[in-house]
Amino acid sequence: MKKYQLMAPGPTPVPAEVLLAMAQPMIHHRTPEYEALFIEVRAGLKKLFQTGAEVLPLACSGTGAMEAAVINTLSAGDTVAVVRAGKFGDRWVEISKAYGLDVIELSADFGHSVPAERVAATLKAHPRVKAVLTQHSESSTGVLHDVRGYAAVTRDHDTILIVDAVSSLGIADLPMDAWGVDLVVAGSQKGLMLPPGVAFCALGEKAWTKTRTSTLPKYYFNLAEEMRCVVKNEAHFTPAVSIIIGLREVLRMLGREGIANVFKRHDRLARATRAGVEALGLELFAKATPSPALTAVVAPKGVDSEKIVKAYAQAHNITIAGGQGEMKGKVFRLGHMGYAAEFDVIIALAALEQVLADLGQPVDFGASVRAAQKIFAEKS
Amino acid sequence: MKKYQLMAPGPTPVPAEVLLAMAQPMIHHRTPEYEALFIEVRAGLKKLFQTGAEVLPLACSGTGAMEAAVINTLSAGDTVAVVRAGKFGDRWVEISKAYGLDVIELSADFGHSVPAERVAATLKAHPRVKAVLTQHSESSTGVLHDVRGYAAVTRDHDTILIVDAVSSLGIADLPMDAWGVDLVVAGSQKGLMLPPGVAFCALGEKAWTKTRTSTLPKYYFNLAEEMRCVVKNEAHFTPAVSIIIGLREVLRMLGREGIANVFKRHDRLARATRAGVEALGLELFAKATPSPALTAVVAPKGVDSEKIVKAYAQAHNITIAGGQGEMKGKVFRLGHMGYAAEFDVIIALAALEQVLADLGQPVDFGASVRAAQKIFAEKS
Repeated sequence: MKKYQLMAPGPTPVPAEVLLAMAQPMIHHRTPEYEALFIEVRAGLKKLFQTGAEVLPLACSGTGAMEAAVINTLSAGDTVAVVRAGKFGDRWVEISKAYGLDVIELSADFGHSVPAERVAATLKAHPRVKAVLTQHSESSTGVLHDVRGYAAVTRDHDTILIVDAVSSLGIADLPMDAWGVDLVVAGSQKGLMLPPGVAFCALGEKAWTKTRTSTLPKYYFNLAEEMRCVVKNEAHFTPAVSIIIGLREVLRMLGREGIANVFKRHDRLARATRAGVEALGLELFAKATPSPALTAVVAPKGVDSEKIVKAYAQAHNITIAGGQGEMKGKVFRLGHMGYAAEFDVIIALAALEQVLADLGQPVDFGASVRAAQKIFAEKS
Repeated sequence: MKKYQLMAPGPTPVPAEVLLAMAQPMIHHRTPEYEALFIEVRAGLKKLFQTGAEVLPLACSGTGAMEAAVINTLSAGDTVAVVRAGKFGDRWVEISKAYGLDVIELSADFGHSVPAERVAATLKAHPRVKAVLTQHSESSTGVLHDVRGYAAVTRDHDTILIVDAVSSLGIADLPMDAWGVDLVVAGSQKGLMLPPGVAFCALGEKAWTKTRTSTLPKYYFNLAEEMRCVVKNEAHFTPAVSIIIGLREVLRMLGREGIANVFKRHDRLARATRAGVEALGLELFAKATPSPALTAVVAPKGVDSEKIVKAYAQAHNITIAGGQGEMKGKVFRLGHMGYAAEFDVIIALAALEQVLADLGQPVDFGASVRAAQKIFAEKS
């Protein structure tokens, strides 16, 4: 028996309690029962997003919510600045171009980040920039961008900051209102430990103002229409009912743990993973602040990282992820987000030792686990 | 104990086998396991849509797939003709207008349909019509439109026929290739007996040709990009994994029953429901061909149909649906699609007798059940 372990950077494992909640008989979405559920979900989402703004759930994947953010706040011909340092930065560029926006690319080598000063300088040089688009956690490189810094420099401009928090919501601290982030996008299948199929847009006042002048065409993703329904505890279109039911369970779990503890847990898991990987002589791909959601690791010289991914799967029944785009073959990625705890990290590292040895690499067995254990032994 | 019964025209009940399949541990969508699953799903969908074309699953509700159909085949300024005889006909109009299309409305009073001759005459009078948009089953009125007839008259024009089959796929016969329907849209939460959250677009050759000249902006719903991924057994963006897993189970169930038998079952359920309702002296809302998916019933004189819906819920723990838009208060709707069988109809009718009596209406107890039983006793 090889127990199945899902350790990719999303989708992440779904707790059995949540799976079973979602396996209850289907209910209708225009009933008092759904209304009561949705009232609880709305309140829980606001806490999780750390905002007084309404959080709008949409039936789509994270990319759909990214698109919704763009098409509801901008118009063709508008100029946007995109922090582009990974595959999901590329996605902001692609969405923007698909809708006829002019894109100023703030590019950094993958594995690196873009300092807030560069965003500030861009806004000074191009005062017509209508929005700054960034990831918080860039899942393709394992880097955490300086959203707090970006917010500080966009806040006093007539520019909104749109943040893809798909792999950071409920993982890394992102106090939307306190930092002054205007629009946060997230998904169900990362920190929220749910199946993919629901994504979210939370818009602050400044972002709502922009929706009033946006002329890009939209229907399914019309957020003003969605808002009109959500405040009545309804969805504009048929919601992904079972995932919303699971969401209530997840919000309760996260509420019991306490959001500050959730962030601490992810920070510990990430530090332990990094310490373990480095104890095996491997190099982290992130040269900037690493994300607490996942760790991207450079494959040892001469080893195709796809082989590492395959060995995890075939020898140990563990799903991790390889590199995307130009990082394919060079990087493998270990997820430690959502329904992830200390001994999951121990499993991932113990397996890594076995995998490397099987691929003919020299391994000091136990070294990575020891390094992780030292982190876990720290009083938090 | 009042057993919960979901008898609305969608979402419909999900079989326990399917709920439990979806409650299995989450898997990743870029793995050999998912690939094997998706190969089976692709083949099953083609059979269900009765087409050689690829069926593209999207993570969204049915409305998202309706929008995808429009924005991938048309361009701003194009003229379309919309069969408008209910709330979902209105939706085609709204989507078309949101994207700057010129709409010729082929309207009929709600409860009625639009004859194919009128579509033919419209195409003759307006040879620049690029697409005809219609529902197959109009869920708001319980009418089945003459898609076969529409296909016969569009087929020889440079016009594509786009059919919303959200509440007819796997319910009413719709042989896409044989009839010559160019684009079929469907959803997961009706005949497919799944939770809402996945919708489908199937495009024939003529529709694919139109995608090459369409200039409407799109990204999440870019069907050409989706197609490139689907033929490699992948999804362009993270799919709604758990619903796709459920979909495999459903396709197996429908395959075992046989699609012809599935249509026969729905026809019997619908005929029995109509016979039962009429045996109580109530009037069907559909004056044209009734849909086998649901039965819309006119509330007795002086009775607000919302009261009937409420009484079903409060006295019997049964969810049915009221009227939408201008039909609110006048109509109630009984769903008999998807995971629905003969004794579900008996329950719905028995409850209706109780509900009407409780609302002070004269009721010949057993009359509706007797009428339904006679239908079920027929050799099929």
